[in-house]
Amino acid sequence: MQNSPVLADGDNTIFELGDFAFESGATLPNARLSYVTYGALNESKTNTVLLPSWYSGNHHGYEFLIGPGKALDTSKYFIVATDMFANGLSSSPSNTPPPFAGPDFPEIAIRDNVKATHRLLTEELGIEHLRAVIGFSMGAQQALQWAVSHPDMVEAAVAICGNAKEYPFGIVRLEGAKSALMADSAWNEGRYDKPPEVGLKALARHWATWGVSQEWWRRETYRELGYASIEERLLAAEAGWLRRDANNLLWQAKMWQRHNVGDTPGFGSDFEKALRSIKARVLLMPSETDLYFPVADAEYESRFIPEAKLVPIPSIWGHGAGAGRGPGDADFLNQAIADFLGRSR
Amino acid sequence: MQNSPVLADGDNTIFELGDFAFESGATLPNARLSYVTYGALNESKTNTVLLPSWYSGNHHGYEFLIGPGKALDTSKYFIVATDMFANGLSSSPSNTPPPFAGPDFPEIAIRDNVKATHRLLTEELGIEHLRAVIGFSMGAQQALQWAVSHPDMVEAAVAICGNAKEYPFGIVRLEGAKSALMADSAWNEGRYDKPPEVGLKALARHWATWGVSQEWWRRETYRELGYASIEERLLAAEAGWLRRDANNLLWQAKMWQRHNVGDTPGFGSDFEKALRSIKARVLLMPSETDLYFPVADAEYESRFIPEAKLVPIPSIWGHGAGAGRGPGDADFLNQAIADFLGRSR
Repeated sequence: MQNSPVLADGDNTIFELGDFAFESGATLPNARLSYVTYGALNESKTNTVLLPSWYSGNHHGYEFLIGPGKALDTSKYFIVATDMFANGLSSSPSNTPPPFAGPDFPEIAIRDNVKATHRLLTEELGIEHLRAVIGFSMGAQQALQWAVSHPDMVEAAVAICGNAKEYPFGIVRLEGAKSALMADSAWNEGRYDKPPEVGLKALARHWATWGVSQEWWRRETYRELGYASIEERLLAAEAGWLRRDANNLLWQAKMWQRHNVGDTPGFGSDFEKALRSIKARVLLMPSETDLYFPVADAEYESRFIPEAKLVPIPSIWGHGAGAGRGPGDADFLNQAIADFLGRSR
Repeated sequence: MQNSPVLADGDNTIFELGDFAFESGATLPNARLSYVTYGALNESKTNTVLLPSWYSGNHHGYEFLIGPGKALDTSKYFIVATDMFANGLSSSPSNTPPPFAGPDFPEIAIRDNVKATHRLLTEELGIEHLRAVIGFSMGAQQALQWAVSHPDMVEAAVAICGNAKEYPFGIVRLEGAKSALMADSAWNEGRYDKPPEVGLKALARHWATWGVSQEWWRRETYRELGYASIEERLLAAEAGWLRRDANNLLWQAKMWQRHNVGDTPGFGSDFEKALRSIKARVLLMPSETDLYFPVADAEYESRFIPEAKLVPIPSIWGHGAGAGRGPGDADFLNQAIADFLGRSR
């Protein structure tokens, strides 16, 4: 994840949400949603592709899918890439004034991002139809939530290395991540003046194994990235995580942990019922070596989504395969997504 | 791991090693090796089975393999179960007086355990031949090291969920574990008066996902163990890890990380050459869902060990399958090991 700095280069636009009511019940004044667009909306307003950001990422994350010859040709699609709450660009613990600053920021649901983005699309951009929602990891959580929350608006959804709910393994794994960061007393329940560096470094080392696969490490693939040793690779990872805000990372992780499309109003916590309600065509692309989101979980979900296609990514890049990190991963994703979008219903 | 308290019930015997020279160069005075035995040595002294302990475990760990109808019938075998250095019973950071107490304890190699145990067997118990060495996890590291260090003494070796060296993935995973514990400032570079509880709890949450498989969690298998929720399971894990000594855990983890049979004197760091030198029959039993020690690593090693048999354990219990934790795992291991030992050369 350390390849996608949270602090983007200022090319983003802010949509002012005003008073925003989170699913938790809290209302945040002057809430903000950050986004960028590529290409142009067509006359019939039917060519929008939405790309919601992932954990520790931002609106730049999907550029490997965007451009001539890629899945998302900007001469064909109008692309809206959004920043998730708590990523440091949209409203976040790090950029919100008191009384909602830092650890006083409201708890966030994946659905809160869908709600905010729905307002951006309909109120600001005049869009009532999504040609596709495509997301990786927590972006996949958002993509599938879109398909459940707005069945008549979403034509197609692509969930790359991510699921419609967080399974127990993922919840526990994220407990490990959070605990490593919070073990640093400098974190101080989120009320720090300077970054809890020891905790952020522990988090870096936590993620180092999860981000790719056992085989990736066994082949010493870090050498292909220019690192001469394991420790050199880990130090680079630490430097990346030290640029993040601890509370932002924790708020994103908690949002990730508690996600379940079954909790969408109207489904009474019935996960399978929520999946069955999806009208969009859905492409599920787990990575064959993803340690967070094993293929079995996507396969399980595919049994309930009426029109689902399961295309695992063959890669040793684990979770990172879904962000196009390994040689061949980006090509595989571009081809599969282009094929999927190109098919008429 | 939390099912095997480090503080055993006092049934162990101490073998006094006197001044013990570690591979690191340090010499520890009054070093101690803890062990227990089951059964009796036969007249020809050819029926000894050695069982070296694993990370955070002790000499009780292998009882699921010992007894009538199990792989290791005490009427047939003389069983020696040893405690690894730093497990709290043999010489450890926690039980050694200054100037080698706590963080001043020497760094340990897997080979140091082999060396100490070789002295126990030859000097104290009069044993020059091992019918088998059987080990799980770090016990497997020891079993394979025995086969390399003493090719003419070891007749058979069984490596359950463990390898002949620590692969990069495992090294990095253990960095995550160590960092979570050390992020607690109460750890204080190992000079604590009371346990670094926040760090030990973070370690508990770190291990919670690694110890079993994604599928284990997805099926909510913790309910079969009597836990009503994920959090209840995690709190029980924390209670288990809080009984451990932080430095002991760190010293064991560092020993685990740096292991490589290729570093045995005489092999010039040539891992494959060391494996080729093994004369013992070897049974490799990775678990099909082990997240630390994937089957691919055991398969790789089997290509160099002259007489190797690879029998993966079919289980959703991940690494824990090798400790006989899942229903059917203990039976599978007992059957496979009994078959293996029963075969004449």
